[in-house]
Amino acid sequence: MRKLVYTYDESDPEDVKLLGGKGAGLVLMYKQGLPVPPGITITTEACKLFYSNGERLPDGLMDEVREAMRWLEERTGRKFGDPRNPLLVSVRSGAPVSMPGMMDTVLNLGLNDDTLRGLIELTGNERFAYDAYRRFLQMFGSIVLGIDKKVFDDIFEEIKRERGAKYDSELSADDLKEVVRRFKEVLGDKFPQDPWKQLELAIMAVFRSWNSPRAVFYRKANNITPDVADGTAVNIVAMVFGNMGFDSGTGVLFTRDPATGENVLYGEFLPNAQGEDVVAGIRTPKSIEELKNERPDLYKQIYDMAKKLERVKKEVQDIEFTIERGKVFLLQTRNAKMTPLARVKTVVDMYEEGLVTKEEALARVKPEHIIGLLYPRLDESYLKKHGISPIAEGLNASPGAATGRVVFDADTAVEWRNRGERVILVREETRPDDVHGFYASEGILTSRGGMTSHASVVARAIGKPAVVGVEKIKIDYDKREFRVDGITVREGDVITIDGFTGKVYLGEIPTAKAELPREFFEILRMADEVRSLGVRANADTPEDAEIARRFGAEGIGLLRTERMFRRPERLSIFQQVIMARDSEERREAMNKLVPFLRNDFLEIFRVMEGLKVTVRLFDPPLHEFLPSSDELLEKLCEARMRGDSDEVSKLESLLRRVRELREANPMMGHRGVRVGVTYPEIYEAQVRAIVEAYLQLRKEGKDLQVQIMIPQVADYREIKYVKEKAIEPVFKEYGVRMPVGTMIEVVRACITADKIAKEADFFSFGTNDLTQGVFTFSRDDVENKFMHDYLEKGILDFDVFQSLDTEGVGELMRIAVEKGRAANPNLEIGICGEHGGDPKSIEFCHRIKLDYVSASAFRVPVARLAAAHAALREGSGVPNLLIFYNQASPLRNLIVSSCFGFRAISCVNPNSISSPM
Amino acid sequence: MRKLVYTYDESDPEDVKLLGGKGAGLVLMYKQGLPVPPGITITTEACKLFYSNGERLPDGLMDEVREAMRWLEERTGRKFGDPRNPLLVSVRSGAPVSMPGMMDTVLNLGLNDDTLRGLIELTGNERFAYDAYRRFLQMFGSIVLGIDKKVFDDIFEEIKRERGAKYDSELSADDLKEVVRRFKEVLGDKFPQDPWKQLELAIMAVFRSWNSPRAVFYRKANNITPDVADGTAVNIVAMVFGNMGFDSGTGVLFTRDPATGENVLYGEFLPNAQGEDVVAGIRTPKSIEELKNERPDLYKQIYDMAKKLERVKKEVQDIEFTIERGKVFLLQTRNAKMTPLARVKTVVDMYEEGLVTKEEALARVKPEHIIGLLYPRLDESYLKKHGISPIAEGLNASPGAATGRVVFDADTAVEWRNRGERVILVREETRPDDVHGFYASEGILTSRGGMTSHASVVARAIGKPAVVGVEKIKIDYDKREFRVDGITVREGDVITIDGFTGKVYLGEIPTAKAELPREFFEILRMADEVRSLGVRANADTPEDAEIARRFGAEGIGLLRTERMFRRPERLSIFQQVIMARDSEERREAMNKLVPFLRNDFLEIFRVMEGLKVTVRLFDPPLHEFLPSSDELLEKLCEARMRGDSDEVSKLESLLRRVRELREANPMMGHRGVRVGVTYPEIYEAQVRAIVEAYLQLRKEGKDLQVQIMIPQVADYREIKYVKEKAIEPVFKEYGVRMPVGTMIEVVRACITADKIAKEADFFSFGTNDLTQGVFTFSRDDVENKFMHDYLEKGILDFDVFQSLDTEGVGELMRIAVEKGRAANPNLEIGICGEHGGDPKSIEFCHRIKLDYVSASAFRVPVARLAAAHAALREGSGVPNLLIFYNQASPLRNLIVSSCFGFRAISCVNPNSISSPM
Repeated sequence: MRKLVYTYDESDPEDVKLLGGKGAGLVLMYKQGLPVPPGITITTEACKLFYSNGERLPDGLMDEVREAMRWLEERTGRKFGDPRNPLLVSVRSGAPVSMPGMMDTVLNLGLNDDTLRGLIELTGNERFAYDAYRRFLQMFGSIVLGIDKKVFDDIFEEIKRERGAKYDSELSADDLKEVVRRFKEVLGDKFPQDPWKQLELAIMAVFRSWNSPRAVFYRKANNITPDVADGTAVNIVAMVFGNMGFDSGTGVLFTRDPATGENVLYGEFLPNAQGEDVVAGIRTPKSIEELKNERPDLYKQIYDMAKKLERVKKEVQDIEFTIERGKVFLLQTRNAKMTPLARVKTVVDMYEEGLVTKEEALARVKPEHIIGLLYPRLDESYLKKHGISPIAEGLNASPGAATGRVVFDADTAVEWRNRGERVILVREETRPDDVHGFYASEGILTSRGGMTSHASVVARAIGKPAVVGVEKIKIDYDKREFRVDGITVREGDVITIDGFTGKVYLGEIPTAKAELPREFFEILRMADEVRSLGVRANADTPEDAEIARRFGAEGIGLLRTERMFRRPERLSIFQQVIMARDSEERREAMNKLVPFLRNDFLEIFRVMEGLKVTVRLFDPPLHEFLPSSDELLEKLCEARMRGDSDEVSKLESLLRRVRELREANPMMGHRGVRVGVTYPEIYEAQVRAIVEAYLQLRKEGKDLQVQIMIPQVADYREIKYVKEKAIEPVFKEYGVRMPVGTMIEVVRACITADKIAKEADFFSFGTNDLTQGVFTFSRDDVENKFMHDYLEKGILDFDVFQSLDTEGVGELMRIAVEKGRAANPNLEIGICGEHGGDPKSIEFCHRIKLDYVSASAFRVPVARLAAAHAALREGSGVPNLLIFYNQASPLRNLIVSSCFGFRAISCVNPNSISSPM
Repeated sequence: MRKLVYTYDESDPEDVKLLGGKGAGLVLMYKQGLPVPPGITITTEACKLFYSNGERLPDGLMDEVREAMRWLEERTGRKFGDPRNPLLVSVRSGAPVSMPGMMDTVLNLGLNDDTLRGLIELTGNERFAYDAYRRFLQMFGSIVLGIDKKVFDDIFEEIKRERGAKYDSELSADDLKEVVRRFKEVLGDKFPQDPWKQLELAIMAVFRSWNSPRAVFYRKANNITPDVADGTAVNIVAMVFGNMGFDSGTGVLFTRDPATGENVLYGEFLPNAQGEDVVAGIRTPKSIEELKNERPDLYKQIYDMAKKLERVKKEVQDIEFTIERGKVFLLQTRNAKMTPLARVKTVVDMYEEGLVTKEEALARVKPEHIIGLLYPRLDESYLKKHGISPIAEGLNASPGAATGRVVFDADTAVEWRNRGERVILVREETRPDDVHGFYASEGILTSRGGMTSHASVVARAIGKPAVVGVEKIKIDYDKREFRVDGITVREGDVITIDGFTGKVYLGEIPTAKAELPREFFEILRMADEVRSLGVRANADTPEDAEIARRFGAEGIGLLRTERMFRRPERLSIFQQVIMARDSEERREAMNKLVPFLRNDFLEIFRVMEGLKVTVRLFDPPLHEFLPSSDELLEKLCEARMRGDSDEVSKLESLLRRVRELREANPMMGHRGVRVGVTYPEIYEAQVRAIVEAYLQLRKEGKDLQVQIMIPQVADYREIKYVKEKAIEPVFKEYGVRMPVGTMIEVVRACITADKIAKEADFFSFGTNDLTQGVFTFSRDDVENKFMHDYLEKGILDFDVFQSLDTEGVGELMRIAVEKGRAANPNLEIGICGEHGGDPKSIEFCHRIKLDYVSASAFRVPVARLAAAHAALREGSGVPNLLIFYNQASPLRNLIVSSCFGFRAISCVNPNSISSPM
């Protein structure tokens, strides 16, 4: 039979799965010669057997325990159950992944009426001994025997009341004797005086706590599956006491500051106390700094131990220690939870200190750390201090916190902004026409829409905080106000939104401004050394381009041209293009736009000097540039009521045209290259503007590489036709050549990629649209209507618009890459859908050997890191060990998102589930 | 060097490609011992050389011709150019495929001033000889020398005027001499007296006519590509003369009646005339029947020859003959063009007569013949006789002709129909709510929409004629009229529409009612013996089901359930379902519908007793069952103007809900199984109704197999969820089991077909939706907005919603079949999209080994035939010889469609391009 109980000497500290995290940590410290109280570990295997055995301990387990306890006795010089020299132990759970507070611990086990006397003799401290006994009875009663903890608390409080004591410490030894008496009354004969029986029952209780409802829920929520952790170990460790006087105490420390990452010990220490007392918060602990002044000798000991552990574990450690009568004991060590800032700083520092390799450093920084650094955060302590609650809650669509005055439309946002106000744009939902308002606002709040609604996508792309889908908010545009739960918020009132949590607050909440530390840029530089995948940015404006460049984008992978047509002075010209009845008229109108477009391109080209810029030709359906029929009908009604017959007939004729252009499913309608084929004049004018801008830049003595990209291609002949009719004639006219490529965003383009590759210099996967085509899901509709349901019911594991569906969409990408490269070995292949900024998706892109990913400017740093991770993972050949990107369960996604304000991030390292993922 | 000139003796009549159709026909007749004037053939190879040689005759060709002419001289006993005994020849084009009237012919070649005298001596008929000479000069001048034909006609008419002659025959020999004189003046010295020079020039002229603009256009229009026919042959045949007195004559005959198929000779005969005289239409020809009475001996000869040719060619023949002084000569034979009725009847007759095998018979019947029989046709002769022109023209969306009174809405259609009127439903476009009007109408006319608009699809499905997209028609619903080119047509006025041609006529035009002959059913029975692919029908009503059964469907492959919710008394209940705010409310409302649905199912089940019926669960987006926002806004405006505030607030609240449900792209939105997952109550109630109907049928002592089909599946877990929540509980409750399967209409379902097949008992490809997903084309929008452009510009070869895109959609189907069958060998796989009724698509389905196709009821006969063709083609191993389904060019499609009123049919047998495809 397999060995189920291990002493430190018999254990391998690497075997976390068998020994649990706590057990392995103790063994590690022991083997490093650090002072840990001796202990033994019952393995997770035993726990599994316990369950397969109908919740009975495996045969022979207690014999093994007795045997191992002898080792413990030898090391402590005490004897378990010996009335004269009693060994007391703690019985603690310890799963392979930390599940803090989820399972149970019993301290001071081994005490009974006899050993109590021994303890008194040994310590010479009756009060201490009775205190220990009552603690033990209380824990044993509640944890092992399942008696409501409240029963014990009530008794204890009653006695304090009787004695007129305010603090526990005011109770005398006699008082505690009384407590013990009454506790024993409660326990009756269920409390075994036999320490071995106590131990057996406690072990079973710890095993059972593995399957307690809260523990089960926690594992489900955190997607801790049996392959990651299946059962808890039990650690039986000799007790040490921090409450044996003022040369004793207990504390916790971090080997570096977990908030700032500064390389100083950080922690707290409570003299003459046991661990629970720290938690109880009755006395204010001292900082570790104070210990340094008071007991430099102890501080030095602890400092050395901590640093030693850090060196061995190569991560910042979170350590529990106890000082018993001047002697330091380490009780636990684990990797520290840190703020994103601290995570990035410590990793870079440790790399520079030579503690970790570049690869190790990179592996420790998660995308969410990078994101966490990019955006301002609310000052949580301020909220707590002032007891401030949110007035509403929605989806955390784009991270960051923002404060400003409420405005209800984009124009007002711009107007107020121009007079120096900070504003929050509040809308039911947003449209492309609102985008100028996004730039003018600190943040966006909508009452409708999901994580990939227009508001969400645009806000993320330009790095503005956004909270969307706050359904409780009822907006009244006419009254310029919104109501929520009886509160009325008027235009101009100040609110604060938290894009990390989806919460909305009244008034201004201070935020910690995001200032990017040196280490942020340093870790990305390291990432660049490792990654093979290129990283470009999706950017439509000079502002976007500047952000992209600052964040290290190697070019623009997607320059959308639609907004160039939306600016007021251009829209009316473009409407002429749409209304034109023949090619002549259309060309004429388009040519009027060329100077505007040329200037737009030139501004962006200047920013991107020396890099690559891929310009996507016109993509959306034309009707988006006309007023909606709803709008017209409302106006028509007004005009009729006024009796304004001129206006009526004008509106009626416009309405007719709008209805003519109206499409049942515009996403799949007359758009992209389809418009390019039917109205080549539009593409031709765009190409003309691009070429002229490029030549102008050259005149200015600068250069860059421009690529022209055709959207929505389903058949190679579309490219051929458009090249022939709209692109090549312009090249010829100006005597230039530019690579011409295509979006791969239509399913058929993937399937016929071989033919398309012969007509294209490059491919760029448009996985937003591709996902729509593969699932027949309209992104706008799906997010609003049923994505939530699909995640909740487990039909989808994650939102496929946030992270690539590698099984469906990915398979088509794989086919396209294979066929495309076979037909055209020089083909450059990238991705410019939103997935290009999603770490899991980036890993997939690396795996299928794309040349680059293109992400929105604010996701470029994440993409650089994720690309490095992908390269490392590949190099290591251990895909799931270093970092484990998890197609997390929906529930998990919700939790992750509430932690990090970004649902797209569903990656988690199982080794650090206890760390601030 | 390859031989370029062949005598009959040297030729193989099978080598149509080398000899051309006419040449091969002559050789065949010769080899069968039939009396043909001797001749030689210059091959199509020579024509190719002519062109590759810069339009010069190949070296040595004329030497070969001289050599071969000797054979001709021997056989005729005359000598080419011999003034005493001159041989005259015709020089005629003859391509491998017939291009009637497209290329040139020269008769009486070999005449000159010398041989003219010989001809006079030989015939003793000066007038005849001069007539022959002037005809020759005229043809040589216009065809060989390129002089405008009008010049000759003018001279001829002038002389007739001078002589006071009304008919050509009134001109004397001297008059004709004068004609010859003046003609020669025109020709001048360009006319060679040397017969060999004449021959050389004529050969070149015939070769050149291959590339005349009209011939090039014809080939392009008919998709006659070089692999089918590349150059024309030239036939040089000894002249025989039908104009040598009243024991001479000329005629054409069909070996069977090409209109009815009756097994009698059918044709016309003109005594004392040359072929051109028949065409000129000056004298009324006699019918072949008259010849039988007048010259039973000649009739008998001709009859025997004709029947012999029919036996040899195994097809009804179209024969040209000439009788020269009592001796019959056959000049040409080719396969006859026939009406669909005649085609089907003759094929079955010939099979029953033992002339052709079953396989040969089946191969000769094309899908369009079957379609042609199913629908009434306009009486063309009536139109011609009365000089009636259409008032407008649109797309021929659904075949057949129909006459009725104009009505402008479906309810009026039903009302008028109920009082005994025949009506034509005229709408701008139609919606599902109009379908009851389709059933009530003789035909449908719309001013908008394409070949796959709602009107088109429904009309075809239920076999009603439809003309759609007649843009010139301006409908004024308020005035109950439409206008077109100044004509106003009021409700109640009679119009006739021709769904074969897309034409619209004022008043009643007589139609030939479609009565299905015995042979129609017989040929389909023969098809059934050959095909391996099953054929089922898409049918939603008992009426559909009856048609389907009558046309031989083996079951219902797609029973759509949506219309069950649309009937007035149900719609309001279903609106409660949609408005319901929780599951309880929803279930309650749905349960009220169960009795209605049960009854609907029962009625259909009764019709389909003994067969399979596949019921598709609810598919469309829910908002389709609420009024449109446009409608509500109009009403709202009216209510506001009335000041009816109650109504205003009611409408406003409805509008809110409609807007809530509104989707940007409903086709890709909350529909199909997505609704089933979010609102399982809907599916549950449907399954309940199905099961109850089935049990009721069993009670009635009948049985059938019901299959339940889930639409829009993208992931296997959708099926799993719906089975678990909505289907299996009902099965359990009633103690029944039915196969549960899925539509495969989402791209992802194809890619993950292995997983899906483990959850499904059957697959049914929904290629309409699949095509949408693969192309990102919304069918409604694409057809209206740019499909036409795509076809015209050659970006698509055919409308992919009419015929399967085998390269894209087909590839995904292939993947799905492969993965599906591998995972579940018992999987039944069919197709129920509209492509299931398209012959080319059916062939593809056969090739990828589907179990069945399901087509709309009226396409079932076509599907049965096409399935047989597919099996034959496979068996023969000669895929393109027996029948050649052609991905025809757009232009060809237009022509085909105008011939057959059905654009979906783009199949053509290259051997019968001259037959009435």
